[in-house]
Amino acid sequence: MKYKFLSFLMALTLSTISAQQTITGFTPENEKKELDLEKAFETKLAAANLDQWMQRLSAEPHWVGTEYGKKNAEWIEKQFKSWGYDTKIDTYYVLFPYPKVRLLELTDPTPYTAKLTAVPVEGDPFTTQGDALLPSYNAFSTDGDVQAELVFVNYGIPKDYEELEKLGIDVKGKIVIAKYQGSWRGIKPKLAAEKGAIGCIIYSDPKDDGYVQGDVYPKGAFKNKTGVQRGSVMDMPTYPGDVLTPGYGATKDAKRLDRKDAPTITKIPVLPISYEDAQPLLQALEGSVAPESWRGGLPITYHIGPGPAKVHLKLEFDWQLKPAYDVIATLRGTDFPDQWVMRGNHHDAWVHGANDPISGLVALLEEARVVGELAKKGQKPKRTIVYCAWDAEEPGLIGSTEWVEDHQQELQQKVVAYINTDGNGRGFLGAGGSHSLQVMVDEVAGSVMDPQRGVSVKERRNAADMVNGGKGEFGLSALGSGSDYTPFIQHAGIAALNLGFGGEDDGGEYHTIYDTYPHYKRFKDPEFGYGVALADVAGRITLRLANADILPFEFKQWHTTVSGYLDEVMKETEKMRDAVEKHNKMVAENVFELAADPTKPFKKPTKKEAIPYLDFAPLQNEMAALKATIDTFEAADVSKLSVEKRNKINEKLIHAEQTLTSEAGLPRRPWYKHQIYAPGFYTGYGVKTLPGVREAIEQKDWKEAQEQIAVLASTLKQFNTYIQEMNSIL
Amino acid sequence: MKYKFLSFLMALTLSTISAQQTITGFTPENEKKELDLEKAFETKLAAANLDQWMQRLSAEPHWVGTEYGKKNAEWIEKQFKSWGYDTKIDTYYVLFPYPKVRLLELTDPTPYTAKLTAVPVEGDPFTTQGDALLPSYNAFSTDGDVQAELVFVNYGIPKDYEELEKLGIDVKGKIVIAKYQGSWRGIKPKLAAEKGAIGCIIYSDPKDDGYVQGDVYPKGAFKNKTGVQRGSVMDMPTYPGDVLTPGYGATKDAKRLDRKDAPTITKIPVLPISYEDAQPLLQALEGSVAPESWRGGLPITYHIGPGPAKVHLKLEFDWQLKPAYDVIATLRGTDFPDQWVMRGNHHDAWVHGANDPISGLVALLEEARVVGELAKKGQKPKRTIVYCAWDAEEPGLIGSTEWVEDHQQELQQKVVAYINTDGNGRGFLGAGGSHSLQVMVDEVAGSVMDPQRGVSVKERRNAADMVNGGKGEFGLSALGSGSDYTPFIQHAGIAALNLGFGGEDDGGEYHTIYDTYPHYKRFKDPEFGYGVALADVAGRITLRLANADILPFEFKQWHTTVSGYLDEVMKETEKMRDAVEKHNKMVAENVFELAADPTKPFKKPTKKEAIPYLDFAPLQNEMAALKATIDTFEAADVSKLSVEKRNKINEKLIHAEQTLTSEAGLPRRPWYKHQIYAPGFYTGYGVKTLPGVREAIEQKDWKEAQEQIAVLASTLKQFNTYIQEMNSIL
Repeated sequence: MKYKFLSFLMALTLSTISAQQTITGFTPENEKKELDLEKAFETKLAAANLDQWMQRLSAEPHWVGTEYGKKNAEWIEKQFKSWGYDTKIDTYYVLFPYPKVRLLELTDPTPYTAKLTAVPVEGDPFTTQGDALLPSYNAFSTDGDVQAELVFVNYGIPKDYEELEKLGIDVKGKIVIAKYQGSWRGIKPKLAAEKGAIGCIIYSDPKDDGYVQGDVYPKGAFKNKTGVQRGSVMDMPTYPGDVLTPGYGATKDAKRLDRKDAPTITKIPVLPISYEDAQPLLQALEGSVAPESWRGGLPITYHIGPGPAKVHLKLEFDWQLKPAYDVIATLRGTDFPDQWVMRGNHHDAWVHGANDPISGLVALLEEARVVGELAKKGQKPKRTIVYCAWDAEEPGLIGSTEWVEDHQQELQQKVVAYINTDGNGRGFLGAGGSHSLQVMVDEVAGSVMDPQRGVSVKERRNAADMVNGGKGEFGLSALGSGSDYTPFIQHAGIAALNLGFGGEDDGGEYHTIYDTYPHYKRFKDPEFGYGVALADVAGRITLRLANADILPFEFKQWHTTVSGYLDEVMKETEKMRDAVEKHNKMVAENVFELAADPTKPFKKPTKKEAIPYLDFAPLQNEMAALKATIDTFEAADVSKLSVEKRNKINEKLIHAEQTLTSEAGLPRRPWYKHQIYAPGFYTGYGVKTLPGVREAIEQKDWKEAQEQIAVLASTLKQFNTYIQEMNSIL
Repeated sequence: MKYKFLSFLMALTLSTISAQQTITGFTPENEKKELDLEKAFETKLAAANLDQWMQRLSAEPHWVGTEYGKKNAEWIEKQFKSWGYDTKIDTYYVLFPYPKVRLLELTDPTPYTAKLTAVPVEGDPFTTQGDALLPSYNAFSTDGDVQAELVFVNYGIPKDYEELEKLGIDVKGKIVIAKYQGSWRGIKPKLAAEKGAIGCIIYSDPKDDGYVQGDVYPKGAFKNKTGVQRGSVMDMPTYPGDVLTPGYGATKDAKRLDRKDAPTITKIPVLPISYEDAQPLLQALEGSVAPESWRGGLPITYHIGPGPAKVHLKLEFDWQLKPAYDVIATLRGTDFPDQWVMRGNHHDAWVHGANDPISGLVALLEEARVVGELAKKGQKPKRTIVYCAWDAEEPGLIGSTEWVEDHQQELQQKVVAYINTDGNGRGFLGAGGSHSLQVMVDEVAGSVMDPQRGVSVKERRNAADMVNGGKGEFGLSALGSGSDYTPFIQHAGIAALNLGFGGEDDGGEYHTIYDTYPHYKRFKDPEFGYGVALADVAGRITLRLANADILPFEFKQWHTTVSGYLDEVMKETEKMRDAVEKHNKMVAENVFELAADPTKPFKKPTKKEAIPYLDFAPLQNEMAALKATIDTFEAADVSKLSVEKRNKINEKLIHAEQTLTSEAGLPRRPWYKHQIYAPGFYTGYGVKTLPGVREAIEQKDWKEAQEQIAVLASTLKQFNTYIQEMNSIL
């Protein structure tokens, strides 16, 4: 739509805030009202509230099912009510394992029993709460008692196993030890089990978030030798949420899978440990020295093994259904009560969770408080705004997933967009989401001031991008997984955003007992300036979506971005072809063997199957057709439309994202419906765009790749038809 | 010359040895004779000799001036004599500092006195020789007694100081601590002094050659926590050799500079230490955390400082003239006694020097033994072969430099080429040198079998290159400095080569007390197979040069290579221009400040001077003219030339490389005459090709750059004229 198209052009250049006073989606008469409202909103945001609420909400550990977690939910409910929201707590009953037995010992060559306990530190009384601190473990590890030789597998991701294969090292029947990072943690036991390992240990190497990165807690923000990252290892790339109720809400009486049949519990036991506990294990390994890029920051030579180190890993969990309390607060829209703008952040934490998630939650609460206050004073939103505080995000996005599954039809009918936040810090705006919202987010980012530098958060982010070698152009990243937007966008096909600041708040506290208020105040966002900025950005987005005359979806930017993904997939295929051709030539000429050191392990590589040429034309043709349709849509001057037509267009715009899904979902994971974005099957949180096609290619399943090209082409056609329908309204 | 040009083409492809029986430089009737001779030579090479001689020569420490060093020289002399060489020892009297006082202490915040002593290890009796082991120090550090705050400067190279500048950190009045590697060690104190530091400590970080790389000695080959790399810090990029006799031989009665006027002694005291001694110092630093790429492998957070760590460094040396014994062994040529093929390797070591230099020296000796034996049986070389065992290489290429300076005129008259070796190990052939010799070296490398893989050393090297992403094409690297070829090629303009095997023999023993026979036998070249291969490659090259009908210089490859250097310099200039333009745009838009973390040190960058356009046309024109001249020369069928003409051509070919020098030498370092290759003024060993032009550009001295373009153009013209003179003989 041409409507406010000018502002889009301006937003693409480094612009001053004063130049940013034109916004997409409003008629000239309503634009000023909206900007005045947003200004009033911004002015009322108070950092002191965030600070005070963080102290309240992170005072005690509050993982799902805890007494303090329930208290937090009830306190949040109370706040929303006091601010004028129609508020309820929706409760789900979800499987949650609590660690009963955690034993890890090195049995050979010299015995060592892992301590599995982080130490309290001076100056942080929260770390002294002893038994109240959740023991370190990986939720949804299976029970197990295994003993075997140890193998170091670097990050434990697919390319690490390729390297092991080259060295002729097999993990079958072994226990692997993998570093945290390099992928979402759940990929490590999943892949290890696929390769035949019988146990998995994950540790935080000091190179990744310990002393190599900076001074350790309490001197600095990074992980001391005893810190352990907790976290879920549920197979979320298959489906997130309650493991026993795939695809439907875990209500009290829901039919549940038998636990032994739950496909998303790991196949092998897995335990996270500190680098203090990892060092004796790693030091006891012999065999090949690990490749350069695998080596961490411990003062040892990293060997791969297998053995002579042998370890014994014994894990037992108390598997119970726990209540998950989702707080849902609704502010009814005056004009379009059945069009909902949703906004959410989880409230459960692994331990105190000052950063994750409370820093994001307090921003959401402050935003809700002011929106509520403005409404009380008569500045009510035209559309309904729904604020959510999710429970049980940490063990696997459970609270949000169950709620979305439970209300799926209504949500698909009513929700304009879901805007998510989670832990927040100091630095640069990170924004991911549906690319039809990029222009709007770009405009908002140009309107909010950076609390440190006196320019817009957009300018600051673009500056950082340029310093890092980028072009300094604002853009949304594509969403994979890792927070509560997943059930909305991936499963229900609802347009979604995920927002947060960071980049100047590094630390090693993530999911440890050190993610506390004192740590946050010293190292994250001491003045809560970025907490307020987050409330400002997310609040303005929420208000614009709630009040827009024409919903600010824009498809040219979407088309540019998705065309880029298609180019990327085609180029990757070409690169694979070139690499295989080169590899096979080198195998034929025996080059690998000639270059190999005969004193070191070496497995002679074999020829690889040649990469066939895929027919990408269906996708290219659909993208070309879409371009024409979108150009027509965006060329229309909607300011001249009748109110009736406008409302019709809005009704259509709300559901546009859903036409990018396919009911069958992705191969082997039908829960994931979206055809443009998905978390990678072997990356976890990391996104795969055009996932059906891309992952089939990456897995070299050419038949499936061609099938998925057809599926995606038909999805794109469906999207095209849908926009054509809007064009016919114009 | 078309002569054997076919073999060059064949050599460029992966070829089998049987296809490699055509060699450049011989008439058809003499070619077979030469190949038979080389075969006979190869057959007689015996690994057992190398093993036995290494045990003899590395039994005790033998740095310049030691009793054992003298014994080695005399023993080498005796061997050459026994093999029929006319042998002498040429003695020079060279300044050599022995460490009297070495004190390094951390005085604040907690005292620590550096141990400065490597420990003896089990299984290696050579490490127990106590006082006989030369204390660890850097030769040609000045005396000094300084106390100041410490600053960590990474590798202490120019780009590290640029980073410090960005952080607003000044080393003026401070003592710097730099890691070994990243440049030749002498650059570190040189640059530190230029920046105003008053002392310099150099240490070996475990990430570079300690436990991060592999198991440490004696379990593995790498540097244990006590090992210290000795080494010269003389300002060799200004001139190598005796510091008191620049440009002329340090004969007994030579006129000598006063030591205080010697420009190549460091301006500030400098001492190398182990990582055990470095850790307390580095751990005591505060201030900015070092950038990611600066961080080493110690289990600490690397901070930059300055301070609060304060150190006290006190060094005193016993400055004495020591005799340096160059062993010179001559085998007179039958046909052209005044045309010399020279071959050298040094014999002095920092401690035992089993690898450096004895592994290369024993290969040279075995080569000389067999060449001598063949001569005794009547297969005498047509040209004179001169074998040299240099003394005092370690403190600054002193033995070879003094000898070359002392005999410069005769050498420039007579020497066809100088072929250097130094420490040798297991792995792949490394070859650097004058590119007019590339075709010949390529042919030889195709004739010598790799001792592990049953293909030619060339094929194996090309395979490694391909596995590492290269094209697998054999080529000579350009020579900078670091061994005894420097006075020959850089100063006298004599064509030179440097040869050695390596890449599968990593370790941390370099210049430590652990460079011993047991270490060598376990980790370097246990069977001396690569010692024999080195004798084979160097011996065949020596014999081909000695017996060739037409000396195997070839200029098309030279032209291709040097054209590549010119392209590179022009492209680098463009890149600099783009980078400055981008930088200035970002300064103008305040991008750096906007992107910077306000809680961290930041110095606002200023605009840089724009890069002017240089006139490279004189070089492009000369290279174009040269191409035509060289094409004419190489197109001639020299097999049809009369013997008289051939001899004339040979006489000219011998001196061709000298026309690539300029009498004035490089700016600020007239000792360096060669205009195509030089060690970098700020890299040390690392080569700078087209050094006059390239370094002026790198230093942004545009006036000098344009002047040096003129100088280089006139040198190229001189070379062109010289080849035209050869063409007129054809």
